[in-house]
Amino acid sequence: MQSSVPSGAAPPSGPALAVDIGGTKMMVAIVDDDGTIGWRERIDTMRTLDAEELFGPLAALVGRALAATAVLDVGVGCGGPMEDRNETVSPLNIPAWRGFPLRRRLAELTGRPVAVDNDAKALALAEGRWGAAQQVDDYISMVVSTGVGAGIVSDGRLIDGRTANGGHIGHVVVVPGGRQCVCGARGCLEAETSGAAIAAFTGRPAAEAGPDVVDRTGRLVGRAVGSVANLLDLRLATVAGSVALGYGDPFFAAAQTELDAVACMPYARGCSIAASGLGSDGPILGAAAVAFRARRS
Amino acid sequence: MQSSVPSGAAPPSGPALAVDIGGTKMMVAIVDDDGTIGWRERIDTMRTLDAEELFGPLAALVGRALAATAVLDVGVGCGGPMEDRNETVSPLNIPAWRGFPLRRRLAELTGRPVAVDNDAKALALAEGRWGAAQQVDDYISMVVSTGVGAGIVSDGRLIDGRTANGGHIGHVVVVPGGRQCVCGARGCLEAETSGAAIAAFTGRPAAEAGPDVVDRTGRLVGRAVGSVANLLDLRLATVAGSVALGYGDPFFAAAQTELDAVACMPYARGCSIAASGLGSDGPILGAAAVAFRARRS
Repeated sequence: MQSSVPSGAAPPSGPALAVDIGGTKMMVAIVDDDGTIGWRERIDTMRTLDAEELFGPLAALVGRALAATAVLDVGVGCGGPMEDRNETVSPLNIPAWRGFPLRRRLAELTGRPVAVDNDAKALALAEGRWGAAQQVDDYISMVVSTGVGAGIVSDGRLIDGRTANGGHIGHVVVVPGGRQCVCGARGCLEAETSGAAIAAFTGRPAAEAGPDVVDRTGRLVGRAVGSVANLLDLRLATVAGSVALGYGDPFFAAAQTELDAVACMPYARGCSIAASGLGSDGPILGAAAVAFRARRS
Repeated sequence: MQSSVPSGAAPPSGPALAVDIGGTKMMVAIVDDDGTIGWRERIDTMRTLDAEELFGPLAALVGRALAATAVLDVGVGCGGPMEDRNETVSPLNIPAWRGFPLRRRLAELTGRPVAVDNDAKALALAEGRWGAAQQVDDYISMVVSTGVGAGIVSDGRLIDGRTANGGHIGHVVVVPGGRQCVCGARGCLEAETSGAAIAAFTGRPAAEAGPDVVDRTGRLVGRAVGSVANLLDLRLATVAGSVALGYGDPFFAAAQTELDAVACMPYARGCSIAASGLGSDGPILGAAAVAFRARRS
């Protein structure tokens, strides 16, 4: 279902329809090859358990976008997990969709090639194209927000993995025997540093955490990044997400200190952890980048 | 310097000269495309600090191999680290070679294309071709021996990383604040489970360790593999090396138990840890696989 070009030929050029599916908002935009965002509109993600009731307003929004501008194709960033190599989605924070065939439904709706990917992997693609990882072939792009996710680019290629769920740093163990994680393991990065975890163990919103929690969160993120830098021979981590960006400088300083203590292999030494270069446009640019990547497949 | 074929065309076919550089032995063999080992010969790795004195006997051995059979090219597996994307090598356990231009020297000697890679990455290639990871696109192949190393295949491609040192699971942190590692960090898998580390903290050869050490070694290897399985969306780890294979079933049982406790994401659940499928031929087959991989580049 993807547009396809012979190896070596230039991929088709032109705007994509970008669709960012979040737990509280959905955005649709027209994004040009150079990352320019034209038409865009956002709606609330309806609180419902009915898959079609949730899809209806999204379909209407997509219709308005297509009426505004012709596009070559459609890219989607969506919360994980996904199944069947992104053919269906079951975003943790959107209970109405469990195994929902989002790609096929959008393809039927638009008559265009549609590519769907995990929103953290999508963001990694966008960081490489337009953000903090331009010209870098090996990096990880993290989101530390309600949950913790990431996408990894290695040797210039986004890592998909066996079921297309690759990159998920949220389930690297950083505190052996630590807090119970939703996945079933203990001490996963997500169980120790996600906004949801912090709220659970401090008893107040993650945004109101004290300096000790901010410092600990940064150190544990730095520890995970250090292990990944040693493992995958990379020297750049970009970080987005409300928890990381909300905590700001003290978070990044703590993360870098711990990262320096872990990434000691000669090839990993000097690995840096930096804020995303895309600001609040990251998720929608990520969705567009999913479409642009598919043009080369 | 690599043989090169157009994308899509079949790579050239025929035997490769395989060179395995170890701290105690060096082996040279003729290996066919199907993994059949023909002529082979092994020499001790001379204890010397003179780079040329070490290279001389290897060059003589290579000469004897080439006199026996014509080969298309040369593949080399060598201990890390490597520099300049495998152009020079500085194997930790061979002090005579620091920044030694092994690839160029063998190319000059043989007049053939030569590809060099880390021995653990080489083994991963061989596990995929002829060993325990055939038909698997996403896996890690570890060596738990004097040191701890690994190669990772993701989406069907061996991960190189920024400086070609990718795959090094030995420096994933498994015991935060744990034992001092040679790399400078603390609690790396290598600092806790390598033969050298076990000998240092038990005061006797790793092979004589008691059941508690065997169990702990297995559990820590399983913990690292679990994190990597979650991170890279894979479900197979193969393990070679004198420590792992010497400890045998109790090691693998402990590793699998801990792996099951960590790899809880739906896509990683069921990840298995298995002994290498290549036995003592692993290293030399790895070297051959490095040559076969280069035929496609």
